[in-house]
Amino acid sequence: MSELTHFNEQGRAKMVDVSEKETTLRTAIATSSIMVNASIHEQITHGTNKKGDVFAVAQVAAIMAAKNTSNIIPMCHPLPLTGVDVRFDWDIDKESSHYNVLIQAEVKTKGVTGVEMEALTAASAAALTIYDMCKAAGKDMVIGPTMLQHKSGGKNGDYQRTE
Amino acid sequence: MSELTHFNEQGRAKMVDVSEKETTLRTAIATSSIMVNASIHEQITHGTNKKGDVFAVAQVAAIMAAKNTSNIIPMCHPLPLTGVDVRFDWDIDKESSHYNVLIQAEVKTKGVTGVEMEALTAASAAALTIYDMCKAAGKDMVIGPTMLQHKSGGKNGDYQRTE
Amino acid sequence: MSELTHFNEQGRAKMVDVSEKETTLRTAIATSSIMVNASIHEQITHGTNKKGDVFAVAQVAAIMAAKNTSNIIPMCHPLPLTGVDVRFDWDIDKESSHYNVLIQAEVKTKGVTGVEMEALTAASAAALTIYDMCKAAGKDMVIGPTMLQHKSGGKNGDYQRTE
Amino acid sequence: MSELTHFNEQGRAKMVDVSEKETTLRTAIATSSIMVNASIHEQITHGTNKKGDVFAVAQVAAIMAAKNTSNIIPMCHPLPLTGVDVRFDWDIDKESSHYNVLIQAEVKTKGVTGVEMEALTAASAAALTIYDMCKAAGKDMVIGPTMLQHKSGGKNGDYQRTE
Amino acid sequence: MSELTHFNEQGRAKMVDVSEKETTLRTAIATSSIMVNASIHEQITHGTNKKGDVFAVAQVAAIMAAKNTSNIIPMCHPLPLTGVDVRFDWDIDKESSHYNVLIQAEVKTKGVTGVEMEALTAASAAALTIYDMCKAAGKDMVIGPTMLQHKSGGKNGDYQRTE
Amino acid sequence: MSELTHFNEQGRAKMVDVSEKETTLRTAIATSSIMVNASIHEQITHGTNKKGDVFAVAQVAAIMAAKNTSNIIPMCHPLPLTGVDVRFDWDIDKESSHYNVLIQAEVKTKGVTGVEMEALTAASAAALTIYDMCKAAGKDMVIGPTMLQHKSGGKNGDYQRTE
Repeated sequence: MSELTHFNEQGRAKMVDVSEKETTLRTAIATSSIMVNASIHEQITHGTNKKGDVFAVAQVAAIMAAKNTSNIIPMCHPLPLTGVDVRFDWDIDKESSHYNVLIQAEVKTKGVTGVEMEALTAASAAALTIYDMCKAAGKDMVIGPTMLQHKSGGKNGDYQRTE
Repeated sequence: MSELTHFNEQGRAKMVDVSEKETTLRTAIATSSIMVNASIHEQITHGTNKKGDVFAVAQVAAIMAAKNTSNIIPMCHPLPLTGVDVRFDWDIDKESSHYNVLIQAEVKTKGVTGVEMEALTAASAAALTIYDMCKAAGKDMVIGPTMLQHKSGGKNGDYQRTE
Repeated sequence: MSELTHFNEQGRAKMVDVSEKETTLRTAIATSSIMVNASIHEQITHGTNKKGDVFAVAQVAAIMAAKNTSNIIPMCHPLPLTGVDVRFDWDIDKESSHYNVLIQAEVKTKGVTGVEMEALTAASAAALTIYDMCKAAGKDMVIGPTMLQHKSGGKNGDYQRTE
Repeated sequence: MSELTHFNEQGRAKMVDVSEKETTLRTAIATSSIMVNASIHEQITHGTNKKGDVFAVAQVAAIMAAKNTSNIIPMCHPLPLTGVDVRFDWDIDKESSHYNVLIQAEVKTKGVTGVEMEALTAASAAALTIYDMCKAAGKDMVIGPTMLQHKSGGKNGDYQRTE
Repeated sequence: MSELTHFNEQGRAKMVDVSEKETTLRTAIATSSIMVNASIHEQITHGTNKKGDVFAVAQVAAIMAAKNTSNIIPMCHPLPLTGVDVRFDWDIDKESSHYNVLIQAEVKTKGVTGVEMEALTAASAAALTIYDMCKAAGKDMVIGPTMLQHKSGGKNGDYQRTE
Repeated sequence: MSELTHFNEQGRAKMVDVSEKETTLRTAIATSSIMVNASIHEQITHGTNKKGDVFAVAQVAAIMAAKNTSNIIPMCHPLPLTGVDVRFDWDIDKESSHYNVLIQAEVKTKGVTGVEMEALTAASAAALTIYDMCKAAGKDMVIGPTMLQHKSGGKNGDYQRTE
């Protein structure tokens, strides 16, 4: 059975020793989403067509959060990220008043441990930022599910989420 | 219709002027959750009974993230938080292998704007930290939904989520 | 003669004691600029008309830097900013290949000391971010002059730059 | 024609993928300046001869800002800086009441991308700190021009500013 | 008996609710020290007489750490500091090769809770910075004792350390 | 005689150039301590047996401070830490009312310079956090001595403290 590795012999959390792990290219893709109401959908898409671009702010937030992950997640190793990319897509069904922003964050590093947490943190920060910028138009927005979709690099092998 | 308030006359995002808003006691409660597998559930609860306490780390992460919210969410006002409390509860149905950690974050301030974002950010950070500490035992964990449950204080009135 | 106030009786820098100063509304406006070449001008304006908006990123950088000023400028007091707004305008003379981005940052607080440094830091961060995003198309860009234009609030009276 | 590289296929800003770039020694030198009045010049130089050293604070600010660059400039890669050095020189013409502090910041790394932004950010932070510490004696100070002087390392070749 | 107040009803740490506490002027003075060898003492004092001033860097570190305390100490409330002052004195007995740097940090706020932690953190950061800058000349330096000397403001009354 | 290396030819502090140093595994162990009263000892140990675990919070603080060292100590190089472990032990003599928490922090990196400062900063942050969480039960606690115990890696050889 896999064991939680984040604890020392006193039973206390530690930052796991990765000194002997190999420096390789590692990537991770995480997704999140935020469900908004029709009015917010209209205002976001209207703004995007001009310059008042909610997603532009959310995406900067995501990239800065990816870089800041080891300050947000206590046991997370600091890693020199070599690339972060974020994209937004609408999943809409007007009949059922379903307006969902799909958020995907892809993070890369050449480092000794994976970047799952950076991708998950980036996607979460994007969703939170959209909430912040739209909350004057309705506080019922719901964030998530947030999850890892894909991971590559490192000796433990790749991960691909299956439905 | 409510309008997105985070944009200036050039159509660019700004940090909204709250100089004239009143300093009052403001509270917000947000919830998130993270669905784990049976093995992770067993290891978390086993650890908690000793000292290897995943939730203890997650909760510190949540409180520090609440204080750091205005650095994570670009248009968010810095606020002098006067209280942050986080709790964890299990929602379990062993028959269906359903092991869900319920996370609740409550944030207070005496300030000129609300603390919804601080509560949502705290709950998200707690969920991400649990993911980080348990990911060696399974990367299929799913975070969310994350949402605001309650908000009080300020002239716009209280908010209470209804199902 | 005015004296530098940032030194203690040992002759060492200190964060000046403002405990007895009054909490009032304070505002400051600072400007900076960045001179770019014709190609960068074309690419920025082309991008802005689509969504690849250099200024959108610069403006988020400016607002986050304003909030982070007391961590960048050592003797600067932490202040609860109540508003930050940034605007960009082109000053162009094609005959002389003069393409200059004018940056204006306006910051507000209700606090015990002024926000000059926050406005100057915001304008500087915007200029640096434009440099970063355009440097692949030419490293000759020149930032500045950067200066305070206006300040109001506090007992020392208002400041208005005169040419 | 060089193209802005900081945008993805959705036209949104990204942190450019540098995973395949080579780790080499990279250096950059940037300069800034701040024009002060005669009184401030006298007080700075007087203080320096004792211990009340404005430049000592400015230089610490510059070095810390260099290390913090990837948190200030949104699309900037985090880099493990291996050296930062800052120097100050006076450019004075008393006849014309010209008192200008020349600031030079040199930054080094062994990394996958250049340190232009770190050098420019360091020089800017030094200038802003001088402004902060002297503003009680006159708010007319002007910062800049701020520019890259030299860059070496990396496959795109060296850069040397020419007048 | 006084009780640890930093725990909620689940027995988990929380940031204590100070929403109802009064905003008053609060001050705290903490001291630390660092014992160095004769060579380090000579180099520090020699440098101070020129410009290579170890204490100037340590003091900037102390002031910035004071402002950053609520990010370093997890359950510490963020407070708008209104003043920070740091001083250094030598306690020397050449006969016994005793060279001790005495560090005193004084912090003020007008806030709802005390600044003991800010003063203790400032003093600690100063000592650590002296260690860093002198460690090439000997790693045997010893930091501490570090302690609170005085505290005033708030309804719990003042504190004065007695020997 | 060893010389302070942190100064440039202007006599000003700099971040020493380590570009030519070799990347090797480096470790450092530092210790600190905090002397508490009988009541605090009782409350900490009582809490630890339940879940209200002062040491759990202190240890998270230590690990996050280790990662944040180059932002706290001005001339300290940023390093990609590969492991941090913190332990707590009681040194008790009830007869003399001696209740001392011994703190040990061990830090590892594969980098170009040592991690002494990271270990010392981690140990200090743990002690400060214990102070913060227990100060409602007595402000006489004393932190330290704080010192380096061991260092390995790098061409200058290992260090081992001797009594």
